[in-house]
Amino acid sequence: MIKTDILIIGAGPTGLFTVFEAGLLKLKCHLIDALPQPGGQCSEIYPKKPIYDIPGFPEILAGDLTRNLLEQGKQFEPGFTLGERAETIEKQDDGSFIVTTNKGTQHQAPIVAIAGGLGSFEPRKPAIEGIADYEDKGVEYIIKDPEFYRNKKVVISGGGDSALDWSIFLTDVASEVTLIHRRNEFRGALDSVEKVGELTKLGKINLITPAEVKGLLGDGKIEAVTVVKDGESTQIETDHFIPLFGLSPKLGPIANWGLEIEKNAIKVDNSLNYQTNIPGIFAIGDVNTYPEKLKLILCGFHEATLMCQAAYRIINPGKRLVLKYTTVSGIDGFDGSRKEAPKAVVQAIN
Amino acid sequence: MIKTDILIIGAGPTGLFTVFEAGLLKLKCHLIDALPQPGGQCSEIYPKKPIYDIPGFPEILAGDLTRNLLEQGKQFEPGFTLGERAETIEKQDDGSFIVTTNKGTQHQAPIVAIAGGLGSFEPRKPAIEGIADYEDKGVEYIIKDPEFYRNKKVVISGGGDSALDWSIFLTDVASEVTLIHRRNEFRGALDSVEKVGELTKLGKINLITPAEVKGLLGDGKIEAVTVVKDGESTQIETDHFIPLFGLSPKLGPIANWGLEIEKNAIKVDNSLNYQTNIPGIFAIGDVNTYPEKLKLILCGFHEATLMCQAAYRIINPGKRLVLKYTTVSGIDGFDGSRKEAPKAVVQAIN
Ligand SMILES: Cc1cc2nc3c(=O)[nH]c(=O)nc-3n(C[C@H](O)[C@H](O)[C@H](O)COP(=O)(O)OP(=O)(O)OC[C@H]3O[C@@H](n4cnc5c(N)ncnc54)[C@H](O)[C@@H]3O)c2cc1C
Ligand SMILES: Cc1cc2nc3c(=O)[nH]c(=O)nc-3n(C[C@H](O)[C@H](O)[C@H](O)COP(=O)(O)OP(=O)(O)OC[C@H]3O[C@@H](n4cnc5c(N)ncnc54)[C@H](O)[C@@H]3O)c2cc1C
Repeated sequence: MIKTDILIIGAGPTGLFTVFEAGLLKLKCHLIDALPQPGGQCSEIYPKKPIYDIPGFPEILAGDLTRNLLEQGKQFEPGFTLGERAETIEKQDDGSFIVTTNKGTQHQAPIVAIAGGLGSFEPRKPAIEGIADYEDKGVEYIIKDPEFYRNKKVVISGGGDSALDWSIFLTDVASEVTLIHRRNEFRGALDSVEKVGELTKLGKINLITPAEVKGLLGDGKIEAVTVVKDGESTQIETDHFIPLFGLSPKLGPIANWGLEIEKNAIKVDNSLNYQTNIPGIFAIGDVNTYPEKLKLILCGFHEATLMCQAAYRIINPGKRLVLKYTTVSGIDGFDGSRKEAPKAVVQAIN
Repeated sequence: MIKTDILIIGAGPTGLFTVFEAGLLKLKCHLIDALPQPGGQCSEIYPKKPIYDIPGFPEILAGDLTRNLLEQGKQFEPGFTLGERAETIEKQDDGSFIVTTNKGTQHQAPIVAIAGGLGSFEPRKPAIEGIADYEDKGVEYIIKDPEFYRNKKVVISGGGDSALDWSIFLTDVASEVTLIHRRNEFRGALDSVEKVGELTKLGKINLITPAEVKGLLGDGKIEAVTVVKDGESTQIETDHFIPLFGLSPKLGPIANWGLEIEKNAIKVDNSLNYQTNIPGIFAIGDVNTYPEKLKLILCGFHEATLMCQAAYRIINPGKRLVLKYTTVSGIDGFDGSRKEAPKAVVQAIN
């Protein structure tokens, strides 16, 4: 059982900044995310694109924002359960909650902060007969660790940035890379499209377009895929079939937690501290809704900050909480580090 | 008469970010500030100190944050009335407001956003008989433009960073710099204290401690100050006397604008969009109060953003407002500039 002060569901920008604000109040955080990496929409959908409305950054790449937020919170040593979806929640007699993931990992905390964004990202799965039987037996919809494919044969299908970028990357890792797309045209960053073209000419990527994977073969695990091109069927031997057709977010299991839901989002009290209808459970960032809500990153930061104050008061009933400026008080990391502004000296001149 | 869409009182971080958010909605802003430079507390009190809780910046100097915010908003061409205090407000028959400063400058706008922080910064004035008669006749409490002192004799008094830094700076501008402080000890950044020590040794600063300016002499304008050291009085000829004893913020004239005030701050409706009890007048950032308010920079950013949406709806009644991501829609500056993310290409590989 993983125990923490604030259990955060969703490691997008809102969840990541919560770690920092909680840390200032000496509260520890643990984050669960269905994706294999932190950053939420910023890292999954548009890591290489600039955002222009993060206050203080005339321009910042979404991936850099994620990196900065991780850096900002790291001295507060957050825990992570990545690649798992928070599935169920149970209130305990002592008022705390136990949250269990789809892989059975259990987490306990007095405060749950749902920072689930548009929901947990679930891969779009191609409609191929029997594909579910091969999941985790050679069929993967997300690449978690490229090393897993070392010296293996892989067939990737898809026509966007993920399919392009992973095909490029795996040429250095896998023994054979096949890329299959149902159109001749790819949709992605110019340099990725060009690079795939080059690698194809060099024979490092086996590009088959316009074509589709229509069948899967193998005994207990994938051994080959059936590819249809121009109405003709061929078989390609492979150890892995990786359809990269994008991820689509689904509020998913959280919708059944007894929370008030409106427009596919969780209703919160924005006149106070973004608490839901269940005391101790908060919802912050894109996942919540209230009058005049804006689904913007900078709003999630504010919501997270006010929420942490409320969390502190629940965890430390009766204790006074005085707002301290980071500039004035500095920051004491849970790892023993200390950051502080240089103090003014008092010194005679003579 | 200066006319604009949103008249912002206070050019601190909250006011500066409002320019950007308003610009995204094609609304123009004009800012009034009592200080000679934008940045509010960040530039007046702690420009060289690091802030640790601006989301996405593990550390940023307050002065750099100000510069970044100015840069972020500059394509929306904000107007500035600096060094003037907003004094009165009058509602017009057409629903707009006219705000007049202590120097008589008039501004008209349908929306007024008060981002006045802790209030307008007013200099702490030393208790010297008759000093008020010499104001703007050789006595200045704020240095607006150092060139004003070119080849003049100046006497500065004070023992903090301002007094130290301006004494250093003016050695290259003024013909004579005298620094007077009632203690031998100065309180400021180490390098400033040391630099003043060096310049004193070089004879570029005439340092008199522990001493106090007790009298002012001159016919219609300052000609000399009386300095008391060790009980003995001497006179020093000078063109300017600049007491730099710090600035203290006062809510000031805004307190009499008919707004609901609580704990020296303006009450707003945080369940919607930070409007005050007077429709069309909003209060954002440190200057407002509501249940669970935190006087933090990041909260002002969120408040400004929601306020701009409300301003848009007042200015454009009935028009639909759809939230657009800056990453997706880019930014069109009022100066004709355009910022946008590189688009994904759609291209065949052959
Ligand atoms: C193309 C694009 C451009 C954008 N441009 C801008 C912009 O310019 N400015 C701006 O402010 N915003 C922009 N946004 C919106 C911005 O990305 C979101 O506001 C922001 O990501 C919300 O952060 P969050 O942390 O609340 O949620 P998210 O980033 O959505 O993160 C939520 C995380 O929670 C996880 N999760 C959800 N449910 C579960 C569960 N049950 N178990 C485990 N994990 C779960 C998800 O996997 C996800 O990683 C843009 C969005 C897109 C798609
Ligand atoms: C030493 C110190 C350290 C701090 N550290 C942090 C920190 O680490 N993190 C953090 O988030 N915050 C910190 N703060 C607080 C932060 O500076 C404020 O929250 C922030 O400056 C508020 O911004 P604002 O724009 O709302 O108001 P301000 O910065 O106060 O700006 C308001 C402006 O309005 C002007 N004004 C007011 N009334 C009038 C009028 N009638 N006419 C004309 N002009 C007027 C003032 O002159 C001023 O320039 C710190 C503050 C101090 C003093």
